[in-house]
Amino acid sequence: MERKYSVGSSASFSKTITEHDVYAFAGIVGDFNSIHINKVAAEKSIFGKRVVPGALISSLISTVLGTKLPGEGTIYLSQESQFVKPVYFGDTITATVTINAFEKKNRATLNTDCFNQTGELVLRGEATVILPEI
Amino acid sequence: MERKYSVGSSASFSKTITEHDVYAFAGIVGDFNSIHINKVAAEKSIFGKRVVPGALISSLISTVLGTKLPGEGTIYLSQESQFVKPVYFGDTITATVTINAFEKKNRATLNTDCFNQTGELVLRGEATVILPEI
Repeated sequence: MERKYSVGSSASFSKTITEHDVYAFAGIVGDFNSIHINKVAAEKSIFGKRVVPGALISSLISTVLGTKLPGEGTIYLSQESQFVKPVYFGDTITATVTINAFEKKNRATLNTDCFNQTGELVLRGEATVILPEI
Repeated sequence: MERKYSVGSSASFSKTITEHDVYAFAGIVGDFNSIHINKVAAEKSIFGKRVVPGALISSLISTVLGTKLPGEGTIYLSQESQFVKPVYFGDTITATVTINAFEKKNRATLNTDCFNQTGELVLRGEATVILPEI
């Protein structure tokens, strides 16, 4: 059986990130930094309003890797993420994964980029995975 | 005013990761990979049981960076994470951040490692940040 993807294959997941998402995420991981959960403090910051944690945005990549491309059975080995632009409550983020190269022992590297609703790159990254058995 | 930390300064955050955490996290980020949320399927996998998403573990690092060291006002520039060992429901994870070096323009690199309750390294990584103003 052959794999259904090759170098250049791509998949995405899009979600509007809500206030609920950020507050529930904070409750799970403990990130109660005021820039995420304090409107008054965030308005005085250089961002001017509350920002979505970069770690939440980066987590959308794992969703694509584990559920779409390469999909179920993928083992996540590493992730490198650069947080290029802030993400605000209400932004609609698209996480896109593109196969960059296949490597030894069923491994692959993938470009992992996230964009906001106006097409701006907010996160640039790269992942390595072990591919699902076929 | 001087900073209260220097190269080698370290801070941690520990949390027992529950089934609730993983399910709520999946609801936020959309990661419904069966290895995380399907007990029957996970028992047939190489892990033998459901595993906590690496992205959730990596998110604990952001908690330390933004709330402890360097703390409030830190701007997260990048994160590199290697998922070294699986984390299971009920594991108690300690995310530890250690200042590695100071760089130009108020930047720092930090080692970001996560350990389980038996002291095994589960995630090895490095972050870069812009330090809070003093």
